[in-house]
Amino acid sequence: MDVSLLVCTTCRAGQPVIEGEPVPGARLHAALERIGAPEGVRILPVECLSACSNGSAIALAGPDRWTYVYGQMSDADAPEIMQGAAAYAETPDGIVPWRERIAIFRKRSIARIPPIG
Amino acid sequence: MDVSLLVCTTCRAGQPVIEGEPVPGARLHAALERIGAPEGVRILPVECLSACSNGSAIALAGPDRWTYVYGQMSDADAPEIMQGAAAYAETPDGIVPWRERIAIFRKRSIARIPPIG
Repeated sequence: MDVSLLVCTTCRAGQPVIEGEPVPGARLHAALERIGAPEGVRILPVECLSACSNGSAIALAGPDRWTYVYGQMSDADAPEIMQGAAAYAETPDGIVPWRERIAIFRKRSIARIPPIG
Repeated sequence: MDVSLLVCTTCRAGQPVIEGEPVPGARLHAALERIGAPEGVRILPVECLSACSNGSAIALAGPDRWTYVYGQMSDADAPEIMQGAAAYAETPDGIVPWRERIAIFRKRSIARIPPIG
């Protein structure tokens, strides 16, 4: 079953906006697209995940599984994010065992939401 | 269509745990249950929304609508939370217009997640 990697493309990550230059969220989205999504994952750009004080923000979500929101991500984290997204996609419920979870996901969690019927 | 008000019952809200006393998340859950859920809303206790540094945390979620996560809630906020939950339930997509949104929801947003197909 496919899961979504939501990427906030409007995140400023606390940095001033420079005219003509993409904001950090847009740069992160571009870096993820360059790498390409692993099997079972689609990259979904979103305008504002309302986690502005913890940007750049991403989320992993899918049907009948836990949703996870992570913050303080930058384009330099893109390769690791894709590893984490692949591990998330491989689980039946979205819960990657703590020891197997990548460090940036362990340390920069904003919230998780259980699947609701 | 019914929506869920998820309440983290393990939130400590940065306070030390006192043996024999409920943690702030459990107190918030109890306060919400005392008021009772408005029509179309069910209260769903959850163990850990992983928003520990912003507790106590709650979330509003439902099928085919935006999910919202809010933090820094206490049992004193229970009446307002129920107002906000009722307004959320009355929308088709979960988006309560900004001007109509209760102040504690405007000010204490942790994240929002779009509905994904």
